[in-house]
Amino acid sequence: MPKVKVIHSGLEREVMVPAGGSILDAAVAAGVPVEGTCGGKGTCGKCRVRLISGRAVDPTPAETRQIPPEKLSAGWVLACQRPVADGLAIRVETAVESGPGKESLEGVAAVVAAEPVVEKHFLRLAAPTVDDQQPDLERLLSGLPLDGVLAGPGVLANLPRTLRESGFEVTAVLAGRRLLAVEPGDTTGRSFGLALDLGTTTLAGYLVDLGTGKTLAASSLSNPQRSLGADVISRINHVSENPGGLRQLQEMVLEALNRLIEDLLSGGAVAAEEVYEAVVVGNTTMAHLFLGIDPSYLAPAPFIPAFRRPLEVTAGELGLAMHPGARVLMLPNIAGYVGSDTVGVMTATGLDRNQGWRLAVDIGTNGEVVLAGGGRILTCSTAAGPAFEGAHIRHGMRAARGAIESVKMDQEVTLGTIGGAAPAGICGSGLIDAVAGMLRAGVINPSGRLADPATGAAHLPPGLRDRLRKTEGGSEFILASGSQSAAGEDIAITQKDLRELQLAKGAILAGIRILLGEAGITAGEISEVYLAGAFGNFISRASAVAIGLLPDIPLERIIPVGNAAGDGARLALISRTERERALSLADRAEHVELSARRDFQDLFVQALYFPG
Amino acid sequence: MPKVKVIHSGLEREVMVPAGGSILDAAVAAGVPVEGTCGGKGTCGKCRVRLISGRAVDPTPAETRQIPPEKLSAGWVLACQRPVADGLAIRVETAVESGPGKESLEGVAAVVAAEPVVEKHFLRLAAPTVDDQQPDLERLLSGLPLDGVLAGPGVLANLPRTLRESGFEVTAVLAGRRLLAVEPGDTTGRSFGLALDLGTTTLAGYLVDLGTGKTLAASSLSNPQRSLGADVISRINHVSENPGGLRQLQEMVLEALNRLIEDLLSGGAVAAEEVYEAVVVGNTTMAHLFLGIDPSYLAPAPFIPAFRRPLEVTAGELGLAMHPGARVLMLPNIAGYVGSDTVGVMTATGLDRNQGWRLAVDIGTNGEVVLAGGGRILTCSTAAGPAFEGAHIRHGMRAARGAIESVKMDQEVTLGTIGGAAPAGICGSGLIDAVAGMLRAGVINPSGRLADPATGAAHLPPGLRDRLRKTEGGSEFILASGSQSAAGEDIAITQKDLRELQLAKGAILAGIRILLGEAGITAGEISEVYLAGAFGNFISRASAVAIGLLPDIPLERIIPVGNAAGDGARLALISRTERERALSLADRAEHVELSARRDFQDLFVQALYFPG
Repeated sequence: MPKVKVIHSGLEREVMVPAGGSILDAAVAAGVPVEGTCGGKGTCGKCRVRLISGRAVDPTPAETRQIPPEKLSAGWVLACQRPVADGLAIRVETAVESGPGKESLEGVAAVVAAEPVVEKHFLRLAAPTVDDQQPDLERLLSGLPLDGVLAGPGVLANLPRTLRESGFEVTAVLAGRRLLAVEPGDTTGRSFGLALDLGTTTLAGYLVDLGTGKTLAASSLSNPQRSLGADVISRINHVSENPGGLRQLQEMVLEALNRLIEDLLSGGAVAAEEVYEAVVVGNTTMAHLFLGIDPSYLAPAPFIPAFRRPLEVTAGELGLAMHPGARVLMLPNIAGYVGSDTVGVMTATGLDRNQGWRLAVDIGTNGEVVLAGGGRILTCSTAAGPAFEGAHIRHGMRAARGAIESVKMDQEVTLGTIGGAAPAGICGSGLIDAVAGMLRAGVINPSGRLADPATGAAHLPPGLRDRLRKTEGGSEFILASGSQSAAGEDIAITQKDLRELQLAKGAILAGIRILLGEAGITAGEISEVYLAGAFGNFISRASAVAIGLLPDIPLERIIPVGNAAGDGARLALISRTERERALSLADRAEHVELSARRDFQDLFVQALYFPG
Repeated sequence: MPKVKVIHSGLEREVMVPAGGSILDAAVAAGVPVEGTCGGKGTCGKCRVRLISGRAVDPTPAETRQIPPEKLSAGWVLACQRPVADGLAIRVETAVESGPGKESLEGVAAVVAAEPVVEKHFLRLAAPTVDDQQPDLERLLSGLPLDGVLAGPGVLANLPRTLRESGFEVTAVLAGRRLLAVEPGDTTGRSFGLALDLGTTTLAGYLVDLGTGKTLAASSLSNPQRSLGADVISRINHVSENPGGLRQLQEMVLEALNRLIEDLLSGGAVAAEEVYEAVVVGNTTMAHLFLGIDPSYLAPAPFIPAFRRPLEVTAGELGLAMHPGARVLMLPNIAGYVGSDTVGVMTATGLDRNQGWRLAVDIGTNGEVVLAGGGRILTCSTAAGPAFEGAHIRHGMRAARGAIESVKMDQEVTLGTIGGAAPAGICGSGLIDAVAGMLRAGVINPSGRLADPATGAAHLPPGLRDRLRKTEGGSEFILASGSQSAAGEDIAITQKDLRELQLAKGAILAGIRILLGEAGITAGEISEVYLAGAFGNFISRASAVAIGLLPDIPLERIIPVGNAAGDGARLALISRTERERALSLADRAEHVELSARRDFQDLFVQALYFPG
């Protein structure tokens, strides 16, 4: 097998890759996940790496399209387009960020009483004698205040020694009627759990004190599966097309979650062995990949998941860095593209608890919409695509350092970037702001067409007009010039970017309109709109309404709720009552399959237009 | 680490053994389990191997005691007494037999109606459409005739493909309310299970058709743990004294069981993936070792097991070669030295079903005694030791080819050997016959003392008298001379052997008498005595009563029931009713701990005497 050297951040690693594999495969094998949003098709241009040796090859057509000439001649290639060869060395400048991003991890701060499934009981047992030969397990169980407790061999393996070394004073850890662990002495004050949110783009985790319900630590990590495709469809295709693909994607997410858990526990106050339960949410595809269940039939119509119900597995079976007997509960999904993350949003926002109609929109890689009221809960999923997370956008990026996150446009353009750094690209909230500004200023018309700098830009102030540039694919609007930007290249919004945004926002708006129609109400009757998702806290509500991502609703009714999905997982972890509610919400949801609706295409085409 | 070459049956293997390890460790590491019944103490003399190189060392005192001089000078050593050294090569002439022995695998042929826990349901499901998006699992479950079925991620992993490749015609395999597997097409006619009996000496297995209840194959194998000690105490000590000892013993038994299963399936008509359940019995120590549970506190008083209740685990978790989701049920034990094998005996003999008092005696490495009647079930365990299985007896061996299995003694001695081969040693049934004969002829007196050939043998016929020989430890009685025997050495019964036998039979008889006293009945009131265990079918009932292994009961009331323990496991596998009965018998049993009884020592000393 060819041996390839991968260099990144001062580290060198040599990996063997099967002949026929790509440089992208080599980077993945080296544990350096390269960005890649098109799933290896050569169309996103994000997997650029630099050849350090073996560069004497002509650029491929995809490379010529995606990489500026001066970088091509400096040895840059698209990792997904280049087969490995023995002795090849590559340098990865930008790997998928593995540190926490800017996305808010805090959702709506619902406060519920701690009422966890995991309970601890301290027991002082009598030592056995020849007249009292009760076995260790039965002795322990007889000391518990409940009957019918189950125990497996795992928890028994060291029980005899634990009992004797602690003088028969131990703490039994129960999850419901299952004995999870027996610990020496009185440890009733220490009991911890994890809430995990498996996003297509970002994995988020919360370490929770099950005694108090308090979140002790929160952290997030890029989903390393991104190097095999930004959207779930690319990953499903990867599974369908590669015999070991499912196992590979499962291992990627488990390995990343173990790093996330390590980070959450890094304070050292809590040991992995003290974490007894995890509640997990994610979109339906991520749930399949996480549990190692074939997602292949989610991609083609009629989009059928393998399961809907909640599933439970032990941390030991999965290989998660918790107590090996810890229960890992995946909350139920609702449909192929409405996952347990949406159930989390429903739970966290208390959609079912209030009077009147409420709308929740979770804008992630897909756009899930929930409308609740009148005793009904309607859901749909819109194929928004990952435009709001920076994918399929020429200079798109996720909300990390250097991302343009806000744009003011009047006579000139004023940019706000994350961390105040030189602009490196544009993230979802920046894109929405920019487009709202361009629309207001007349840089684009309601059909989404950029003004022609030669013939149609006379009405624009010079500070905007000068940013318009004619290209092969139409016009583009320069947000930041090469002299300003981090990479020395212009950061522009292209005509194609606008079309991507229109498709994304049109899909969501059409989905909302279908649900409104199903409920028989108008947008004005909605009393609250919850904006969930990675960037819900950061987008300008005014811009969202201005571009028609949301229907025309008074801005004060729009409430950003941050990572409500993760928040819902946290509630279900802390409280049995909330867990039951989450399961019941999932059961009650009526899913509306948009692809089965004849009226969807018409509504979708209408919704592509920006408000006039 | 020293490298040692191990040669056995034409195979050579080189193994690395930590410095300080013994040649016995090297043989175990090489997968050639050497006989060893004393647990490495150098007292049984059974782990003889031959040094091929590096022999220039003096014999140890244990070797001088155990090995004849001509063998010593030919390089024979005791494997447990010799530290490894680099470059050492050894030849193992006799490893623990890995083929089936003579022990009967057939117990009482109880016929019960097949009513297995594992059930199959053939389903013809509608294919999903965009108007019927029910997920695969929920679609499957809705086709089943029962509610509340549980499914884990394992069974879902390939469900989507299985459903589609079979045109949605599948067979669901259920164990109770747990979905074990989904198979393409109609496989309702094929469903198999295993009954396993984990003996200290022998592992027995039965492959059963769960549809008909018929046993398709039966096989047995030496327990390879024997190389670490013939009795359970040696193995418990091995666990207590070695950090990795528990795992090592567990792996030994699992690896052997997988060979046993391979043998049971070797006809090829049944695949490992079609075996959905196993019911396992064994003594309490074996149950701990099999499940990887620390048995350390079984050895010292007050002899406390880690558990009593039935335990269930999946084949996948254990690594048994069955369907990975198959349930492996270990039947409950009763006490530290009355295991689920005794529960199996109780189930198979239907002890509780008949009128009158019934006694069951399972003579294995330990002697378990059950007395049932008048609505009570009394059990006790007697530390009989493995004398009846050939251990601790100078020329003892298990019931394999060449073992002296029957002895007639009048003017002369007539031997019957297994397979009609040249005598290689003496097994349990042969020993009992021989001693009964010696007692009748006056070679020994009721106190168990061998006649002195010089002063006390005048009353004996010459054909017996000439077999008596004076030795350092007293007299010995030669059964077969070196010219007759397989190894060219005399096969004799020594004074020490007689003492071992007295201790063994005395313990069992005293146990029986304690239970009779507890029940308030005499031996004459027992209507049936069931003789279970490896050699129950082969011993002479007359000899057993003659030496006082059993109380004086009319011979026609003594019924050999063969491997009733395994038979009980088989019944619990085939029939839910029998399984419930087994669990209830275990719950009802009243265990009498002999070590807690003040009257035991007196009864035991009385029982050491042979009937006068």
